[in-house]
This record gives sequence, C-alpha cells and structure tokens, in this order.
Amino acid sequence: MDQPDPVSVEALLARVERIFVKAGLRAENARDVARVIVAGERDNCKSHGIYRIEGCLRVLAAGKVSPDAVPQLVDQGKSVIEVDAGGGFSNPAFYAAKNALVDRTRSTGLAALVIRDCLHFSALWHDVEALAQHGLASLSMCPSYAFVAPAGGTQPLLGTNPFAFGWPRKGDDPYVFDIATSVAARGEIELHRRAGTPIPEGWAMDGDGNPTTDPEAALDGAMLTFGGHKGSAISTMIELLSGAMLGEFMSKEALDFMGGTDLLPRHGALVLAMDPQVFAARSGRDPIAQGEMLLSAIAGQGARLPSQRRFQARARSLRDGILLTRAELDQLDRFERLGLAALT
Amino acid sequence: MDQPDPVSVEALLARVERIFVKAGLRAENARDVARVIVAGERDNCKSHGIYRIEGCLRVLAAGKVSPDAVPQLVDQGKSVIEVDAGGGFSNPAFYAAKNALVDRTRSTGLAALVIRDCLHFSALWHDVEALAQHGLASLSMCPSYAFVAPAGGTQPLLGTNPFAFGWPRKGDDPYVFDIATSVAARGEIELHRRAGTPIPEGWAMDGDGNPTTDPEAALDGAMLTFGGHKGSAISTMIELLSGAMLGEFMSKEALDFMGGTDLLPRHGALVLAMDPQVFAARSGRDPIAQGEMLLSAIAGQGARLPSQRRFQARARSLRDGILLTRAELDQLDRFERLGLAALT
Repeated sequence: MDQPDPVSVEALLARVERIFVKAGLRAENARDVARVIVAGERDNCKSHGIYRIEGCLRVLAAGKVSPDAVPQLVDQGKSVIEVDAGGGFSNPAFYAAKNALVDRTRSTGLAALVIRDCLHFSALWHDVEALAQHGLASLSMCPSYAFVAPAGGTQPLLGTNPFAFGWPRKGDDPYVFDIATSVAARGEIELHRRAGTPIPEGWAMDGDGNPTTDPEAALDGAMLTFGGHKGSAISTMIELLSGAMLGEFMSKEALDFMGGTDLLPRHGALVLAMDPQVFAARSGRDPIAQGEMLLSAIAGQGARLPSQRRFQARARSLRDGILLTRAELDQLDRFERLGLAALT
Repeated sequence: MDQPDPVSVEALLARVERIFVKAGLRAENARDVARVIVAGERDNCKSHGIYRIEGCLRVLAAGKVSPDAVPQLVDQGKSVIEVDAGGGFSNPAFYAAKNALVDRTRSTGLAALVIRDCLHFSALWHDVEALAQHGLASLSMCPSYAFVAPAGGTQPLLGTNPFAFGWPRKGDDPYVFDIATSVAARGEIELHRRAGTPIPEGWAMDGDGNPTTDPEAALDGAMLTFGGHKGSAISTMIELLSGAMLGEFMSKEALDFMGGTDLLPRHGALVLAMDPQVFAARSGRDPIAQGEMLLSAIAGQGARLPSQRRFQARARSLRDGILLTRAELDQLDRFERLGLAALT
C-alpha cells in the first residue's frame, strides 16, 4: 500500500546528477557518473544501480577521488589512445575518449583505449554497449581488489576482474556479456554473512587454504576463480593486460594503496575496439548478418543470451518507469539535501 | 628392453619435414607444418605432436587442403593485417605474416592478424609464444567444429574454440595459456569410448539434452562449455570474433562444409598482438617487471603457472632428445617411405 509511484528514467537521472553536484563533483563528471548509475538501475542491475551512490560519496568524503578532475586525452594518432582520469571516476574519462576511439577504430580496424588512474565502480557492459551502438565489437577489462586466489594457490592475489564483450546487432540489442572471473561476487558472500547462511561449496577457501562454506571465513580467506584453472588463467591475463601492461595498479597494489576494501579501488582499465566491417571487408560477407546466424541459433535452442534479462528490464523501465522502495527514495532525498553530510 | 634411443629435436624435425614433402607439400609448407608438430612432441604435448601427422595426411589424401598454397599477405598499412592461406595449412600463413605483424604492433602498439581460409590443427600456444619472443603480448582464437552446446541449449553449435594468451618474461619462458572453451577435449571422450569407461559428470549431454556419462551418447549429443554460462559466453565471443567478424566459417559452417568430423576443419583465425612498451610508455613503469611481480607471487604460493609442465618437458627434450615408442617410430618410417599411400 505504501508502494511509491514509479520514477521515470529521466527524472532519476536528473536527481542522481543533482546528488553528485551537491557532493562537489564537476558538472560534467556528475552527469557521466549519474548516467552510468541510472543505467544500472534502469536495467534492474541493482548491484550497479543507485546502491552505488553511497560508495561514490564515501570515496569523495575520504578525499580519495578527485571531484573536479578533467580527463586528459592523449592521442598520438596510433592505435592506442589514452585518457588520464586524473584520479577521478572512470566514466567521465571513458566518455571524453569515446569518439576518438570510435573514429580511430573505424579508420584502422582496431584500436585500444587506455584509461589511467581512475576510480572504478561501474559495470563494464556500459562501455561495450556504447561502442556497439557505433557498430563496433569490443572487449573491456580491469583489475579490482585482490580477493581471489590463483588456481593452485591459497592467498588472495587476483581481483574479481571483470571481462566484458559487446557485439553489434542490426535492429536488436547487442550481444553483451560482462562476467566476473571469480565464481561469485564478493557482495554475494557479504549477503550470506549478514543472513547467517552458508555459502555454496566451491566459492572460497579460508585463511589456511581449506575449502569453506562459512562466509566469514571466506571473506577473511580467498575467493575462487570460475572454471578452475581456466578462469584463473583468464583472470591473470586481465591483471597483466589492464594492470601491468598499462603501468597501472594490479589488484594487489590497488588494495595496498587504498589500505582497505571499504573504499572503491583506484587503477586503470583497457578497452579494445574492433570494426567488423573493416575485418570482413575482403571476405565479401556481412559480418553482422553472419553473427545473427549464430545468435539466432542459440536463441532457437531456447537458450537465453547474456544480458537478455537486463534488456527486458530496460524496456519495462523506459515504458513504465523505475520502481524504487520508500527507503531508496528517502535515501535519495537525504543525499540530495545533505550531500556528503548525509554519510555521517 | 625394446625402448628405442631418443631422437633429437632437430632429427625429428628433419624427418617430419621429409614426410610432408613426400606427401606432396610445397617445401616451405612442409617445414612450417613440421616445426609446429615437432614443437608439440618436444613439449610432451602428445595430442598436438606427431599424432597429428596422420590427420594432416588424411586431409591431403582427401584433396581438402591445398598442398602448394602460397600464403598471400595483404597489408594495407592499417592495424589489421591479413594473410590468405589459400586453403592450405594455417602454419605457413602465420609465419608468412609474423614479421609484418610484429613490426606493425611495435610501431602502433596494437595490431591484428587475420588468417583466412586455412586448415587448422595446431595448438595456439605456438603462435602466442612466437610473438612473446618478440616482446609482444597476444591473444589468439579460432572456431573449430560444432560439438558444444551453448549454456541453456541442448544441441551442438559452438566449437571447442581454443583461446590462447602469451605474455613475455625477461630471461624466462613466457606466461602462456591455451585453453579449450569446452570442459574436456573431444579426444578425451573418444579415449573413454575406446576404453569402455564412463566420462565424468558435467562433460556432456546426450542427444535429448540430458546429462550423460556415456561416452557414446556424449559423442552423439553435445559437449558442455567450461565454467557454465561464462565459458559459453566466451566461446560465443570466439565464434563472433574469429568467425563472423572475419567473414570466415564459424564452427557450424565448418562442420557442414567438411561434411563430417573425420577431417580437419577449415576456417579462419584471429591474433591480436600488443606491445607492452607502447602501452606503458607514459606510465614510466616497466610493464614486464610489473608482470613479474604478479607471476612470481603466483609461483610463490606454490601454484603452477600454465604451460609450466610443457616448458619442463621442452628443456628435457632439448637436452636428452625425445623418447618415442617403437610403434611411433615405425609409423614415421612408413609415412616417410610411402607418403599418402601409407594411409591405405
């Protein structure tokens, strides 16, 4: 009976933007951070929706993120474009460089975007979807905090390192996946801890390297990679390509630097973009039509494509607005009224 | 007591090369195919060693591979370099394009190699290792035959799609992984069938989409991807990037084209190469030294790095020679004496 009215996507966007302006973010930065957070909420991807606002405010309050950073684009006309986030959030840096990345990719077939020195909290699907809208395929990856043990090891060293891929489709939502290379998200273990329920086997080991279903022991120990040694290898690749190769923090350094996991991690990110039209040109085939043969055959088996639930939620939100609870709306009010003071 | 003397790597290379020349391969093609096969045997990677000779001869005998194809390099000065294998084996095409790929990557930071219309039988670690020798990081992937069901599906559609990564190390073997995106290799199921033993749960489903441990039912049904829906997403990505995007066959078309799985598949392949020195330049950090911090920390936990066993076998082979059985040596004799006639 106390179900509040739905909020339109535009109204929520304006509101979240105001929250970040009130919290001291430069206007352009507030807009870019807000649009990524609202996109998560719109897609019913609650773990990357308005829930993230508090984490962003906390890192601002701690003085660990630059509120007025102006992303600096460094483009030397090569295949690697760089943008220095200057210790600000990653999203304004991505948007500052996106058009340059799209143009370079179209002209050479393949280009990389290096994001330096950013605070990273958002899902990677946002970036690969934005590139798919320009007809590009892309890969995106970054380190995180060292919570995950390598296969055969016992101590946390790797991040939950996300790996996302986007592929454009004609007249349809793109093919997009965005996976953590850990079996489970750290937040899921946290939820079990709060609820006092055991975690499934295979998620984590305790501090001595023994398998555990105790969420407390898991949080003090190490999480496991998906797919055993194969997932561990992929997670290691992500540390190397989006950490070591860029000369930016890997997950272990990111953790040491912040001195704890209460705040968002600071590191870099890597995006590789490809133009299928350039790659396919000499074949005489339409790469997007080729892709449809596979994707429609997957769907034809009754299998769900990754992100499909997200796209369905998006369509609902755009049509009917977003349903937030009274508690969520109250928190937005408080943030909007008090800014960083709402945290105390 | 009938253990034959070990064969030196060089002697085996010369012998396998002679086998392919006898079978009708152009000299350069025979050399490149032989060196990849002998590298597998040298590394005690038996499934990609001299065992592969017969499969190569069969596809030659069937007239499904061009023995005298001359790889055609197409380099328009962009970030995408192409080489047309002309229906020959993939290895001569890779070697024909390798130097151009290395040079382009060094000058622009990032480049791709597209291999078109090749017969593919070799492990991908060979290519990424060759690039690591030039100080480059690289990814390599290709489709195969449609043996694997997508997560949530029941019918074979995806290949066992290999995914390899290489990262250079200073004064040490590179960090290299080369994983199938299926849980198990098809050959492992075949071995269980011959031995009359059940396969482990989680490897495959039968033709009705039910889980099975019966190898026969598995071979008639569909294999499963590693890591559930995450592995399935990665395998789908490989179909799109190294099949659809290139305008080359995906795994389903490759199977339809050959009309059966007795012969090696024909399709394309994609290699992405990156120069860590270009990516890290502005950071002031040495990316290779950074990578060592991670890799030594993994080893420091007692975890084995991927390919480590292979490198140990290689060191043994180079020092002591390769031990082959009498049956293996006899088969090499027969192939060398009779060429394709040995198959009948």
